[in-house]
Amino acid sequence: MPKRIVVLGSTGSIGRNALEVAASLRGEVEVVALAAGRNVDLLVEQARIFKPRFVALEDEKQAAGLAAALAPYGCEFAVGAEAVKAAAAYADADLVVSALVGFAGLAPTLAALEAGHDVALANKESLVVGGRLVEAALARGGATLFPVDSEHAALSQCLEGRDPGDVKRLVLTASGGPFWRRSREETAAATPGEALAHPVWNMGAKISIDSATLMNKGLEVVEAHWLFHMPWDKIDVVIHPQSVVHSLVEMMDGSYIAQLAAADMRLPIQYALTWPQRRPLHVATKPLDVATMGSLEFAPLDPGRFPCFELAVAAGRAGGVRPAVMSAANEIAVERFLEAEVPFGAIPAIIEETLAKTPPGPGDSYDEVARADAWAREGAREAAARTRWSGERSRR
Amino acid sequence: MPKRIVVLGSTGSIGRNALEVAASLRGEVEVVALAAGRNVDLLVEQARIFKPRFVALEDEKQAAGLAAALAPYGCEFAVGAEAVKAAAAYADADLVVSALVGFAGLAPTLAALEAGHDVALANKESLVVGGRLVEAALARGGATLFPVDSEHAALSQCLEGRDPGDVKRLVLTASGGPFWRRSREETAAATPGEALAHPVWNMGAKISIDSATLMNKGLEVVEAHWLFHMPWDKIDVVIHPQSVVHSLVEMMDGSYIAQLAAADMRLPIQYALTWPQRRPLHVATKPLDVATMGSLEFAPLDPGRFPCFELAVAAGRAGGVRPAVMSAANEIAVERFLEAEVPFGAIPAIIEETLAKTPPGPGDSYDEVARADAWAREGAREAAARTRWSGERSRR
Repeated sequence: MPKRIVVLGSTGSIGRNALEVAASLRGEVEVVALAAGRNVDLLVEQARIFKPRFVALEDEKQAAGLAAALAPYGCEFAVGAEAVKAAAAYADADLVVSALVGFAGLAPTLAALEAGHDVALANKESLVVGGRLVEAALARGGATLFPVDSEHAALSQCLEGRDPGDVKRLVLTASGGPFWRRSREETAAATPGEALAHPVWNMGAKISIDSATLMNKGLEVVEAHWLFHMPWDKIDVVIHPQSVVHSLVEMMDGSYIAQLAAADMRLPIQYALTWPQRRPLHVATKPLDVATMGSLEFAPLDPGRFPCFELAVAAGRAGGVRPAVMSAANEIAVERFLEAEVPFGAIPAIIEETLAKTPPGPGDSYDEVARADAWAREGAREAAARTRWSGERSRR
Repeated sequence: MPKRIVVLGSTGSIGRNALEVAASLRGEVEVVALAAGRNVDLLVEQARIFKPRFVALEDEKQAAGLAAALAPYGCEFAVGAEAVKAAAAYADADLVVSALVGFAGLAPTLAALEAGHDVALANKESLVVGGRLVEAALARGGATLFPVDSEHAALSQCLEGRDPGDVKRLVLTASGGPFWRRSREETAAATPGEALAHPVWNMGAKISIDSATLMNKGLEVVEAHWLFHMPWDKIDVVIHPQSVVHSLVEMMDGSYIAQLAAADMRLPIQYALTWPQRRPLHVATKPLDVATMGSLEFAPLDPGRFPCFELAVAAGRAGGVRPAVMSAANEIAVERFLEAEVPFGAIPAIIEETLAKTPPGPGDSYDEVARADAWAREGAREAAARTRWSGERSRR
């Protein structure tokens, strides 16, 4: 019987890759539900191809005409945030690919886990913001979490079959993004176009900016803490510009186990879909050939160079609602940067300014985390507005 | 209760490292028997330190005075090839470190396995020459084989906990030895001193020369075939001059799992002694730091560049007594080269000439393999003598 999957965020970068992999695994994988934010045209096209039983669209404003467009494919559909959660908890499913972007991914991830569905998790915020909530939902639902990003999928593969007591530390690799070899001062005025030009990965806009600030790597450290139950001081980062070694695990005796692969998200996605087996990758990708891959460089991460990295890890360590505030402020700061309303160098300042006013709170309920998220967005918008104003003033 | 170990070849490079590791694991490991070839002074010193219950010396000519020297330490002792086998099969033992050099290691390895002892195998010839015999002895004795060289220990660690059906191929790394960047013609007249100067590993003389000819890597391919039950066309070699990645396993989906570590034999030795646990390495070694290890280079192995590599793999593939003939001829050729009686470039020619006359035979009994070994040594000596003569003639 095929594995029945739900894809949340099906029209995004990870979602589209997941559907491509699912199509290549016909017979082994069946797409039973899809959920997307607002790209209604692509969602309808995906419904035509995959014939899911249920389709959800989050943005109610885009829903006009959806009923008519979906009519030929005989699938149920619903609209709004609750509809996305319904897709996540869709009863006749085995695994949910959680690939919504940002805080919006947390509630559906929790809904899937509470329903007892295994989750292939691409949404970083689920663990960064809601690590404690995800842990509790996993315990209640009895499901398994599969990381769907190259670093955590690599760590998970390196840890497979090993005694956790034999592990000394996790080492996440970071490409360093497009600005690694340039100073903070040189990149303070970088344009969105420059920051989006990732040297290795072709990804969505938000994660590309997070890679340029190394916020992304900070979020990954926090994710690794929750995914692998690893103390903070046993998670390190090393710069590796080629992104061939996706991460390493150092064992007690000083040996390392590493995972290497082509920089292609479809690899970790497929392994999450076919786990515990592996399958040849049938989608077109250039496989990694170790004999011709050339040189792999490694370098230490300079702690002061990437303030967003530091802010993310510090918020993760502090816990409570601080990760939610940090993540929400980052989402706003990145959004404002992509709209060319604040300079690249202002992103960490906006996050820091917002974090400085964080109200105390244990962050152990969804509602509390959601309130902190909303509060931080408001605070970050104000901080961004002030940044813009001071920018204008300095231009006079 | 401590693990009771026997060290065969205790005065050699691997044997001394094994004893150093054993000493650092006091309480966990107890040395119950030692066997050495001819270094009687060091053997007595080791007996003084480790107080084994049984000591064997292979070379009967060196045995004068052994009884008196060992008297203070209260251990039994015996002399001759049978004594080494008795140490290997020593009843009150859990694990035998098989670190004799060359064909002499096969019979004791078989004796240990027949006695049901786990074997930490550093002796390459046991599997190269006697792969089929080792397999049968493992099946009869019910023991486990732990590879004690960096490449197979790496492969074994990469394979741990994985489904063999998910493995696409094994990739052994080769440093390329001291001559990798030079042509066959340039190195044909290399001196023993040049050939012994391995860029990464500090090893015994025979294995250092085998590394310079890449015979060592060919032997390792044959070993990997037997150790991991892997078809020949699923074992590849890649040049990696830094010897940091000790080998890789490519999985069905095109991902690789790799093992990295400092170039220190004590790491795989210790893991064989403490398996299934890992322990911090207490002996002084510079641990590998991935952040500061710099660049790792990889390059294809040029098939025509290293004829000894080709000869070894071809003999392994052909089976029968050909691996025994190839290995024995290589031992003689290396011995003659180290004595400066034949040039470096003659090593593959001597092996090839000997192999060309190999009598047919299935190679499925120890006696048959031993006869092939003796026959090949004689043949190789003659081939070497002819080489020397033609060398002198050309000098006139």
